[in-house]
Amino acid sequence: MTAPNTAVVDMAALFDRARRASRGLARADRNSALLAIADAVLANQETILTANRQDVDTETAKGTPQALIDRLSLSPKRLEGMAEGVRQLATLPDPLHRVLDGMMLENGLAVRQVTVPFGVIGMIYESRPNVTVDAATLALKAGSAAVLRGSANALNSNRVLVQVMREAINAYVPADAVQLVDSTDRKYVTELLEARGKVDLVIPRGGASLINHVVDNAKVPVIETGTGNCHVFVDSSADVKRAQSIIVNAKVQRPGVCNAAETLLVHQDVAEQFLPHALQALADEGVTLRGCERTQKIVDVEPANESDWETEYLDYTLAVKVVDSLEDAIDHINDYGTQHSESIVTESIANARKFQDEVDAAAVYVNASTRFTDGFVFGFGAEIGISTQKLHARGPMGLAQIVTYKYLIDGDGQIRE
Amino acid sequence: MTAPNTAVVDMAALFDRARRASRGLARADRNSALLAIADAVLANQETILTANRQDVDTETAKGTPQALIDRLSLSPKRLEGMAEGVRQLATLPDPLHRVLDGMMLENGLAVRQVTVPFGVIGMIYESRPNVTVDAATLALKAGSAAVLRGSANALNSNRVLVQVMREAINAYVPADAVQLVDSTDRKYVTELLEARGKVDLVIPRGGASLINHVVDNAKVPVIETGTGNCHVFVDSSADVKRAQSIIVNAKVQRPGVCNAAETLLVHQDVAEQFLPHALQALADEGVTLRGCERTQKIVDVEPANESDWETEYLDYTLAVKVVDSLEDAIDHINDYGTQHSESIVTESIANARKFQDEVDAAAVYVNASTRFTDGFVFGFGAEIGISTQKLHARGPMGLAQIVTYKYLIDGDGQIRE
Repeated sequence: MTAPNTAVVDMAALFDRARRASRGLARADRNSALLAIADAVLANQETILTANRQDVDTETAKGTPQALIDRLSLSPKRLEGMAEGVRQLATLPDPLHRVLDGMMLENGLAVRQVTVPFGVIGMIYESRPNVTVDAATLALKAGSAAVLRGSANALNSNRVLVQVMREAINAYVPADAVQLVDSTDRKYVTELLEARGKVDLVIPRGGASLINHVVDNAKVPVIETGTGNCHVFVDSSADVKRAQSIIVNAKVQRPGVCNAAETLLVHQDVAEQFLPHALQALADEGVTLRGCERTQKIVDVEPANESDWETEYLDYTLAVKVVDSLEDAIDHINDYGTQHSESIVTESIANARKFQDEVDAAAVYVNASTRFTDGFVFGFGAEIGISTQKLHARGPMGLAQIVTYKYLIDGDGQIRE
Repeated sequence: MTAPNTAVVDMAALFDRARRASRGLARADRNSALLAIADAVLANQETILTANRQDVDTETAKGTPQALIDRLSLSPKRLEGMAEGVRQLATLPDPLHRVLDGMMLENGLAVRQVTVPFGVIGMIYESRPNVTVDAATLALKAGSAAVLRGSANALNSNRVLVQVMREAINAYVPADAVQLVDSTDRKYVTELLEARGKVDLVIPRGGASLINHVVDNAKVPVIETGTGNCHVFVDSSADVKRAQSIIVNAKVQRPGVCNAAETLLVHQDVAEQFLPHALQALADEGVTLRGCERTQKIVDVEPANESDWETEYLDYTLAVKVVDSLEDAIDHINDYGTQHSESIVTESIANARKFQDEVDAAAVYVNASTRFTDGFVFGFGAEIGISTQKLHARGPMGLAQIVTYKYLIDGDGQIRE
């Protein structure tokens, strides 16, 4: 049985509860609250899996594709992974109360710039119920209350997970630090996006249409995450064996993620040498290739059209284009990329430098796979998403990016002349 | 004669020119371009003042209040001040190319987090033509192209200032790094606010209605600036002489700016001792007082109502409220403030700490005037505004806040396992 999706939610009251709950979090025992969540997820395994089975059965009956069912499904092993992730989060250094900068002004005012929580963070996301726990615990570690709005098809799972978390944290922090928008009515998404002064930040996680909806409609500050139309450019001086290993890895190691490569760009001087072997290796991995006219003259591939350059396939498909020059590669990437992760394979120090200088993206690689753009890989210990905007945070967002700061200024009667 | 305000502007072409112009700015001789602007503002003094006189005459004929005319008016002295400000900007350290962080991952990837320009920054502002030069030169120093949209009543001034700047910089950077939206048609504001992917950041500067319009309608990232409903709270343990000097300074030293105080909160235990003298001192400075019922019982003031607690007067008016406790003061500030600058006057270390902990604002003062929240005072050397949001930058925004970063990752063939 699917949960009713027409529940009435008093969002104003929900935001007020979140605000009140958020006030003491910076000084509360947030790590104990996190450990309590980890324990509770395991202790309530049966309840969680039963609720999840309802969601899975509903989707299966609807004929939802297996890949999506997989993303929705929880298992004892996945719950163990979730609990372990939360335990690791508890061991990370506190991102709050850090003095980022400080100085004494000439008039004797002592200024400190100190990290503080955002306050109330809204998360709007799709499908995977593990995001419910990820988002709530990351917000909590960073001292903010979380307002969660997951997708309709995971509502039973999310409802139970939130209930389990709320009961678990209540000994340490207010339960209202974690709240679910318990309805699938989209008007509540709109209320969340328009809650200026009530919600300090909204982070969407999901596909391009979700992200676009949020960015286009939000009146609260937003961090755009996750769409990745990433490129690997094989320069004329590239070590072709290395280039082949990098594009194969960037495409197939995990095709469904945002830092996977979607287009291969190849310098014309190396195309005839590189393409036949490399594209065969990709085809051997099950990759469907769509090439520009020049690519088609060298190897037998499907024709690519304009929309291929713009597409984030998230699948075993790769667009291939032969370019005249490094400059053309940079222009193509800046025109079609989503400013996520871009890589050049080259032996030329000048070309490597020019590429890193001029490609406008969060992460610009030389001689490496694009797949490394990830908060865990970067050593952040956790990640709430990959920002593809330039405001506030760019690239992987760890705990240090989920806080803000304020200035504390101590005087002894200073007035301005 | 007023300029025609129905000119057709091809915004898409304008954005493209700005993007192209922005590409080389990080490595261009931006400081020479700034010095050329300073020289050109003085060399073209007559042309600029003539254009400004048209704007001033038009507004005078319309019966515009003198205070607004003053803000619109340029003079040889003001132009000298503008030129001097630009020269100082040229001497500041480059905010670009700074390595903020860096590490070697276990797999040998060398990661650097390096400051880079936003790219194209839009500025929407009111009245004062000096903002045209401020905004363009700050953006230029930070390596970004500026798209400027000033107010209708300064269009002649802005047009000439932009023309002077474009000619001045052309020897060092593309003239299109500084562009004016040469129309007062508001549809171009909408196009600017919706230019996702074309404009990387919009910063509004002006009154609350301008800021609200921008925040409510923007699809590009925005930094909310400048509205300041700031408070001074006189705690029960306050040194009352110090408290009086601070509230007088915070209110009257420059009432029309965002970090001026708008409401005085007084602990009930000290109200009878403090208010008569302090309010007399404020009245002597020409301040009109609006008090809560308890204030009215102590001194003869106009009654304050709910809207007074919400109002940023920007004038010689002050709301006054007696509160029961420190907690009530903090609640009042968090309910009505705009998260700009807040001050407590106290001798209690515990109360000072609690106030700084719990007041949610960009700058939280102990025993000092709110008037110090300012990029120049903080030693930033320049300022593009005071952020009242929590995303990206909070409080005074200097050059370090007008840049973003990217990760540069150098490998030798790394692929993800």
